[in-house]
Amino acid sequence: MVSAFRLIASDGAARCGELTTSHGVVRTPAFMPVGTQATVKGLEPETVRATGADILLGNTYHLMLRPGAERIASLGGLHRFMRWPHPILTDSGGFQVMSLAGLRKIEERCVIFRSHLDGATIELSPERAIEIQALLGSDIAMQLDECVRLPAPRSELERAMQLSLRWAERSRRAFESGPTDGRALFGIVQGGDDPALRFESARRLIEIGFEGYAIGGLAVGESAEVMRRTIDETAPALPADRPRYLMGVGTPEDILEAVARGIDMFDCVMPTRNGRHGVAFTRHGPINLKNARHADDPRPLDEQNSYAPARDYSRAYLHHLVKSAESLGAVLLSAINLAYYQQLTAGMRAAIVAGRFGDFRAETKAAWECGDLPAS
Amino acid sequence: MVSAFRLIASDGAARCGELTTSHGVVRTPAFMPVGTQATVKGLEPETVRATGADILLGNTYHLMLRPGAERIASLGGLHRFMRWPHPILTDSGGFQVMSLAGLRKIEERCVIFRSHLDGATIELSPERAIEIQALLGSDIAMQLDECVRLPAPRSELERAMQLSLRWAERSRRAFESGPTDGRALFGIVQGGDDPALRFESARRLIEIGFEGYAIGGLAVGESAEVMRRTIDETAPALPADRPRYLMGVGTPEDILEAVARGIDMFDCVMPTRNGRHGVAFTRHGPINLKNARHADDPRPLDEQNSYAPARDYSRAYLHHLVKSAESLGAVLLSAINLAYYQQLTAGMRAAIVAGRFGDFRAETKAAWECGDLPAS
Repeated sequence: MVSAFRLIASDGAARCGELTTSHGVVRTPAFMPVGTQATVKGLEPETVRATGADILLGNTYHLMLRPGAERIASLGGLHRFMRWPHPILTDSGGFQVMSLAGLRKIEERCVIFRSHLDGATIELSPERAIEIQALLGSDIAMQLDECVRLPAPRSELERAMQLSLRWAERSRRAFESGPTDGRALFGIVQGGDDPALRFESARRLIEIGFEGYAIGGLAVGESAEVMRRTIDETAPALPADRPRYLMGVGTPEDILEAVARGIDMFDCVMPTRNGRHGVAFTRHGPINLKNARHADDPRPLDEQNSYAPARDYSRAYLHHLVKSAESLGAVLLSAINLAYYQQLTAGMRAAIVAGRFGDFRAETKAAWECGDLPAS
Repeated sequence: MVSAFRLIASDGAARCGELTTSHGVVRTPAFMPVGTQATVKGLEPETVRATGADILLGNTYHLMLRPGAERIASLGGLHRFMRWPHPILTDSGGFQVMSLAGLRKIEERCVIFRSHLDGATIELSPERAIEIQALLGSDIAMQLDECVRLPAPRSELERAMQLSLRWAERSRRAFESGPTDGRALFGIVQGGDDPALRFESARRLIEIGFEGYAIGGLAVGESAEVMRRTIDETAPALPADRPRYLMGVGTPEDILEAVARGIDMFDCVMPTRNGRHGVAFTRHGPINLKNARHADDPRPLDEQNSYAPARDYSRAYLHHLVKSAESLGAVLLSAINLAYYQQLTAGMRAAIVAGRFGDFRAETKAAWECGDLPAS
């Protein structure tokens, strides 16, 4: 039995659904906080849950290097290790191999790289990536793929796309030979900004057959326009009855626009990373708490926010924490930003079910553009 | 009306009491977590409260420089600023001026120093220290004093002690002329490791009259033996009906031994600082989670601990967080250590009331010395 996706409602291309895993239900559109090293930085799992998250993303590359997939398995799996008893998606490790590891070499059989921690030479094959994710015990595993930075020549995009397809087949075979109970494997559409390559990639992944389909190779240097056009061209080629995951995206606006184009799932370090750098996401747009104008402002970030810390702490206090490099500032703003991302996806879900996604999209963007209200 | 201290029980020199402030009751023996820059590093105030703390310490030196005492006052005071609605004690700023500021110069009138943040020249007089603490709105204020590192020549100890006494008188006058409702001012006994100077300091402070008496100038380089002997010589000279506060102390054993000698209140950065450095305090003694022997250990730090994180997270996970420099490790170990310090003081309070402090002291030390149990 694999994870099951149920479409609840559509409104234009936007979709609201439910993905059922053995660790619980993921409501889509879903935003997945990133728990890189078996922790969403600075936050207890109960706090992450309280922000509204149904599912976390774990990074296979980091976890395979430290503390090691076999070790996590012997400790009862990633859910138990990090005390997150809810759904977990793991990436394949491929993206971080490309971006973090030293001296990497891509061969047909596998990618060979040096660990950024200790320089050890390590091989990651499609089969090993599946094995690691099974050891971690994630609910949703991702195939190993090769992600190319944009812009790139078509020949390079095509080569990486074809390799990713061959790895997709091997990933699927490896997945089927392992424990599949309640687990899902997603294929990843590659092809850069080339519509024909994207279409070909999607078509052949569907032939292999996956529980869900991701769009990879975006948010890697291209413009928002190219990203949106590529989603426009790719999403319709994916099966309506399977979840669609746009990897590594993005800003609140990126997410809103991608849902409008038929995407169901997202992950991004932006809410937590920007929180650590003193930026809060709110329904009035981002607020940079480093700015001196907040030093005497007794108002909370958003007195109507359903997440208590966004209502309870003054901007003056958050400014003080950020200016003083106090870790509580990073903790609070990370959680406040994750809560905002969850409020955004919850708002989209409700709007899609109510058949007013278009209005929600327009109202949400208008509120962002209107900006933060000046102190009275 | 000033803060009121009520002695509940004594057992030998050890005392159990209650200090009532306008923000609530402080049960003694009491340990005060240090909230240096209007935050106990990394922890939400609700978390600090959940560890069992009745009262926090705020650092006047840090707060006067950033965000500034007048600013905190205009934002409603320190309790509201940092969302800690319970009792707060503030130090006078003197100790940090001595240890952190550049180019300090002690005059009769005040101490003149350069801010460690921006090099600005700032004067701190006894009167200004009281004014700042009134602006912060702390429940317990401390007089400005001069603290001398040990060992030091007797002439230097005497000079600083006499200056501290003159500053004590000025502090008392300044305090009386400000808002005293529900607020207390503590005098600080100085005199280093010289019994006659300590006795003289205590005697003259009592003549001035304070709501409580602190022993300053310890935990500044002397041995545990000198510290204990000095407490032995000083505590009996202090009024039985007022709380006694040993500043900046210490290890769990320091605290246990000081309570045995008649001390009621403590503050120290040790539980939070050591937590940030990967060390957990437990009833079996300290555990260094950096040690590789924890990497595969599924046991919690202490399965019988009343504070959930000490029971819920495995040592393997805490080890992983510490080794990965993940801020959640610092957050969890800071809270776990604060909870241990509160468990220790709670245990002492119960033992004193039950008339079995001697047994508690022996059992607690035996458990520390027995050490952590090896993994089975």
